[in-house]
Amino acid sequence: MYELHFYPDTCALAPHAVLEALGTPYRLRLVDFRLQAQRGAAYRRINPLGRVPALVDGDTVVTETPAILGWLARRHAGHRLAPVDDVDALARVESFHGFLSSTVHVAHAHRMRGARWADDPAAIEAMRRKVPDAVGELFRLIEDHWLRDPWVHGDTLTTSDYYLFTLAQWLEADGVDPARLPRVIAHRVRMAARPEVARAIAAERALLAG
Amino acid sequence: MYELHFYPDTCALAPHAVLEALGTPYRLRLVDFRLQAQRGAAYRRINPLGRVPALVDGDTVVTETPAILGWLARRHAGHRLAPVDDVDALARVESFHGFLSSTVHVAHAHRMRGARWADDPAAIEAMRRKVPDAVGELFRLIEDHWLRDPWVHGDTLTTSDYYLFTLAQWLEADGVDPARLPRVIAHRVRMAARPEVARAIAAERALLAG
Repeated sequence: MYELHFYPDTCALAPHAVLEALGTPYRLRLVDFRLQAQRGAAYRRINPLGRVPALVDGDTVVTETPAILGWLARRHAGHRLAPVDDVDALARVESFHGFLSSTVHVAHAHRMRGARWADDPAAIEAMRRKVPDAVGELFRLIEDHWLRDPWVHGDTLTTSDYYLFTLAQWLEADGVDPARLPRVIAHRVRMAARPEVARAIAAERALLAG
Repeated sequence: MYELHFYPDTCALAPHAVLEALGTPYRLRLVDFRLQAQRGAAYRRINPLGRVPALVDGDTVVTETPAILGWLARRHAGHRLAPVDDVDALARVESFHGFLSSTVHVAHAHRMRGARWADDPAAIEAMRRKVPDAVGELFRLIEDHWLRDPWVHGDTLTTSDYYLFTLAQWLEADGVDPARLPRVIAHRVRMAARPEVARAIAAERALLAG
């Protein structure tokens, strides 16, 4: 059975909601950031980088959100959560996931994780100040270039929708004005209304409270 | 025919060397960073983010190195540059590519591209100072955890080898002591000796000089 190593309100929500959408059995494993468990030896054996998510099934350990989403889409190809048989269409999905992980998520991370890239507290504060502009500019590209209707890639819901939804959860906290991103917000509303997404969010909150 | 939009000594070298390995026809398109061409309207129509590489074939535009490598491996599946029929093995390849693009390359980018994440010159300088430690620590994970022998994933050369080689080119400039990474350096030497890699590097240098 799958084990999803996660912490609430991180990008682990994307594979979490996809697991809910698939209806496949899985177990949630809280990596408790409050106790710095992501840096502990036990979790480092799963992901030596010390980050979530990681999805494990037996001896197979998959890390990095785009890889996890790709793995789930291929393992459950019948659910058609990615165009796994259309090489060119799949490349567009993967281009979008690459942009989200290596650019959008990274820009966001400069609000909370500046110590990865500088030691000086003033520098870390300077990074934090730029997050609204940097993240806002990247979501502008999503609004204008990437996002089709009603789903990211058009008529068919894919893993990209869960991934975008996850990152769009952070817009207000990042200081980005949602009123300037009406299509992104409409997409976020559509996704939040999906039962599998609501279940994933409720489960994360319950685990944190429990 | 493929068109690879690139600039020398960027991560575009990874798909460039893979195209050479495949022996498929392609054309190099220099996006001249010296003229800020990556920010110009013409290139923004290809990649609105204004970064290389982008690989184009007819109407299909693929951006982000992991997506481009995945696309080439699938389109040329007979060359077996990724385990495209083994869902679990492919997930390991994609986990590694995700780590390289969203963590290792990002740490490196704080040496030259700090203005993406802060406006204050002192903060940009503080980011630069941390690059040797940050990149060094990540390559330590590659040395100890990711890298098998003789190739990244073991006995079979994959796109991961071209990608790792590309990022390992920057170690000295990033201030990382290569003597502390003997396995990474041995891999780099093995890759540099491959004719397709030598051809790609020579072509990039020639285009810059020309």
